[in-house]
Amino acid sequence: MDPDHNQSPPSNPQLLVLRPPPVFTVNEQLFSNRFQILKAYDSPLSTHDFLQAEAQSVKAVLCSGMSPITADVLRDLPALQFVVSATTGVNHIDMAECRRRGIRVAKVGDVFSDDVADVAVGLLVDVMRRISGGDKFVRGGRWPVTDQYSLGLKLGGKRIGIVGLGNIGSRVATRLVAMGCIVSYTSRQIKPNSPFTFYPNVLQLASDSDALILCCALTNDTRHMINNKVMMALGKKGVIVNVSRGAVIDEAELVKCMVNGEIGGVGLDVYENEPNVPKELFGLENVVVLPHSSAFTNEGFQDAAQVVVANLEAFFASKPLITPVTNDF
Amino acid sequence: MDPDHNQSPPSNPQLLVLRPPPVFTVNEQLFSNRFQILKAYDSPLSTHDFLQAEAQSVKAVLCSGMSPITADVLRDLPALQFVVSATTGVNHIDMAECRRRGIRVAKVGDVFSDDVADVAVGLLVDVMRRISGGDKFVRGGRWPVTDQYSLGLKLGGKRIGIVGLGNIGSRVATRLVAMGCIVSYTSRQIKPNSPFTFYPNVLQLASDSDALILCCALTNDTRHMINNKVMMALGKKGVIVNVSRGAVIDEAELVKCMVNGEIGGVGLDVYENEPNVPKELFGLENVVVLPHSSAFTNEGFQDAAQVVVANLEAFFASKPLITPVTNDF
Repeated sequence: MDPDHNQSPPSNPQLLVLRPPPVFTVNEQLFSNRFQILKAYDSPLSTHDFLQAEAQSVKAVLCSGMSPITADVLRDLPALQFVVSATTGVNHIDMAECRRRGIRVAKVGDVFSDDVADVAVGLLVDVMRRISGGDKFVRGGRWPVTDQYSLGLKLGGKRIGIVGLGNIGSRVATRLVAMGCIVSYTSRQIKPNSPFTFYPNVLQLASDSDALILCCALTNDTRHMINNKVMMALGKKGVIVNVSRGAVIDEAELVKCMVNGEIGGVGLDVYENEPNVPKELFGLENVVVLPHSSAFTNEGFQDAAQVVVANLEAFFASKPLITPVTNDF
Repeated sequence: MDPDHNQSPPSNPQLLVLRPPPVFTVNEQLFSNRFQILKAYDSPLSTHDFLQAEAQSVKAVLCSGMSPITADVLRDLPALQFVVSATTGVNHIDMAECRRRGIRVAKVGDVFSDDVADVAVGLLVDVMRRISGGDKFVRGGRWPVTDQYSLGLKLGGKRIGIVGLGNIGSRVATRLVAMGCIVSYTSRQIKPNSPFTFYPNVLQLASDSDALILCCALTNDTRHMINNKVMMALGKKGVIVNVSRGAVIDEAELVKCMVNGEIGGVGLDVYENEPNVPKELFGLENVVVLPHSSAFTNEGFQDAAQVVVANLEAFFASKPLITPVTNDF
């Protein structure tokens, strides 16, 4: 199923886009200069009918979390050889089926890691120091009425547990050290070169932490890893920040724990059923909810677009991919 | 006017409190165990009448920004020898009159510096990455309706100018370096040991910066230092964060520049006329407004209370103050 090495690369190879991610729309010309774009989203046909009618010979597709590559989609694309995702996580791609068919997959590598780490720390500071809460307090005209503004939690000296010390988690750690926090982590395996304390499981990490920051990939092992037990171990003043994937947390349990005051606060960028966010959280003060925007900067999307194009060009030129997905998810 | 060295320290010396700052209320017993508290705020009398009736022999007063030590207050306290402020800045104290009368002044030193630096960086991340804006977007139910969420500004590689590289500014710099920002500064004088580029004036710094973070004291030199010219030099994408004192910015000009889109965004903890915040800012998205809460943590207030008490005990024991105000403001 590798591209045919004897065939000269077509001058304008086809690229299927089911739904345009921002990485595509910030610089659509970068793509249209190089590829013949098949826009499923511009067609009056259903996705299935469009793929049947227009995409039977398509070899490459661009996807994101909003346009998952499911078994159904793969079934409609018999000639597919390459999936490139405009994202860091690939949990929206049926990797097992891709492997079975020899379809290669690339993601955007770590172009978003610094930006996501910035938002992770921004969410932690926001929840602990009540920044969006303070903004609502002032805009609501309450400051001149009462000076009884609730106190925040000091960051310095706090024990912060990072779940997943990869590209993003390690950047979060660097930022937390600069703030005087004490960083520990749990990860699939210990990082021998890391200066931080390793915990073999998230329950022990939660017991010894004032806050958890979730930076891991969503896999069968991490799905609902943050369950009721972990939240109870974190405790009533504990804070959870999630910039990974929503389903790493048991969201129904999270809502219960927040409503009952069993944990102290949450800063969330991701949810189990995006774009739907549990409405029970909206009435709570110690909550900050973002629309999966931790990677949303113009600069980052421009960089990511270059990486996506470079992967596509490598694929069509039968060269090694720039940022392939190699680990067996 | 020094305390009398021949007199043994009174067992319960008087401490005047005009209005109780949080540093006092978080641990009132710490104070009441050691001092006889004269609570002007509990009296039905006006401050002037209370001071005339009850405070003619008072030697020490605890103050904060909410209870300024003006020339009028000083006139009503003929025996005053010591002002201790529960704050880092002392612009609410008539320092000239204190000097003239030989009244000593202490502040809380740098116990709040890390906490204020955390909020400064939190405000910068919030404005640039639209955190409280994203929270409003999600809580307003707009995410399921539109995925056209506006993009933020990447922090990595941005040129951030720090105005005042003292206890707070240098801690802000440490945090920004961890985020991959390029830090420069202006200050009364160059810091020979600083790795950051020095600018002799704020106008040049603004011209070469993507954001300014104000961390300086309010003095005659810094009042309205951030004027229209500086804002125009910073430019339409430029961001201002202020955790110093409101009057360092010409607030009327700031409002005009924001309303007209002449600068890109602001994160403000302080204002010229607290607790009043210009309402024109409330309708804008690229604004985050806090109620002068950058030092508001329980841990920080407990630490500050210890410093205030230590200064008072030193004063009453005729020992050197712990954190005296020595520079000629």
